[in-house]
Amino acid sequence: MAQQKSMEDLFLLFLQDIYYAERQILKALPKMAKAVESPELKQAFLHHREQTQGQVERLQQIFEHLGKRARGTTCEALNGIVEESNELIEEFDTGPALDAGLLAGGQAVEHYEMARYGTMVAWAKAMGHAQVAQLLQQTLDEEKETDALLSKLANENLNQKAKAA
Amino acid sequence: MAQQKSMEDLFLLFLQDIYYAERQILKALPKMAKAVESPELKQAFLHHREQTQGQVERLQQIFEHLGKRARGTTCEALNGIVEESNELIEEFDTGPALDAGLLAGGQAVEHYEMARYGTMVAWAKAMGHAQVAQLLQQTLDEEKETDALLSKLANENLNQKAKAA
Repeated sequence: MAQQKSMEDLFLLFLQDIYYAERQILKALPKMAKAVESPELKQAFLHHREQTQGQVERLQQIFEHLGKRARGTTCEALNGIVEESNELIEEFDTGPALDAGLLAGGQAVEHYEMARYGTMVAWAKAMGHAQVAQLLQQTLDEEKETDALLSKLANENLNQKAKAA
Repeated sequence: MAQQKSMEDLFLLFLQDIYYAERQILKALPKMAKAVESPELKQAFLHHREQTQGQVERLQQIFEHLGKRARGTTCEALNGIVEESNELIEEFDTGPALDAGLLAGGQAVEHYEMARYGTMVAWAKAMGHAQVAQLLQQTLDEEKETDALLSKLANENLNQKAKAA
């Protein structure tokens, strides 16, 4: 039977979901960086891995702020995106098409995160958790920057190379 | 053993992924519309279901244009997002918190689609498939509109109601 649950419950659920997601991303990025040919893309993935480490720490601060233990709950959406990238690594040889596919995988990750952090910033503000909202906003800004960088790499570089391959 | 694969292969793979995703969304939206309390949100989900029907038909046109049979391949990312919404419907009573959660689920779907269609528009252009790019762009524009509408509903309405609950 369904039980009445509050926005605080919902927020905690989403926090656990994104905490799991970020830690999976930490594991996935080095594998993606290793598989790509473009040095710029490799660098972008490795740089974002460093950022992600900071984002995990921010989430731990938020759990602490809320008086909750930091723990993740399986995020099947993120697992699905990562799994798709793993399949591309298995099925495609190193080269422009694989780079384009993994770049798209990276962008799918960023979009998932932007949707989640955008939602959670709005919720945190509405619930009066100003400090939490600020921490989440910092991460949201980083995810947007990363997505913009990946889009730039895609538009300027990889699509043309992939076409020529 | 990995085999050399082309951008055309990659494009077809992504087309099959989003074709599966759109048809899952067709099934999920009526369930989400039924579960929410806000009439505006219910209307937004039902309107997007109609749009999605048109988007599925556009994808069928693209398969035909490329001389390929329209078929989907399981998209675990989309399944994961839909599954999460189903869990919220089971765990939360009807009311503002459930509305906020399903609204966030809808936005996660839109973000996944925006990432995918954005990528595929760029690829179609790079590969010289102008007509295909145009069809995909139409859908991308609709997804962006839907996401903007959901954001508007979230900011103006649901967060405040949920806070008060």
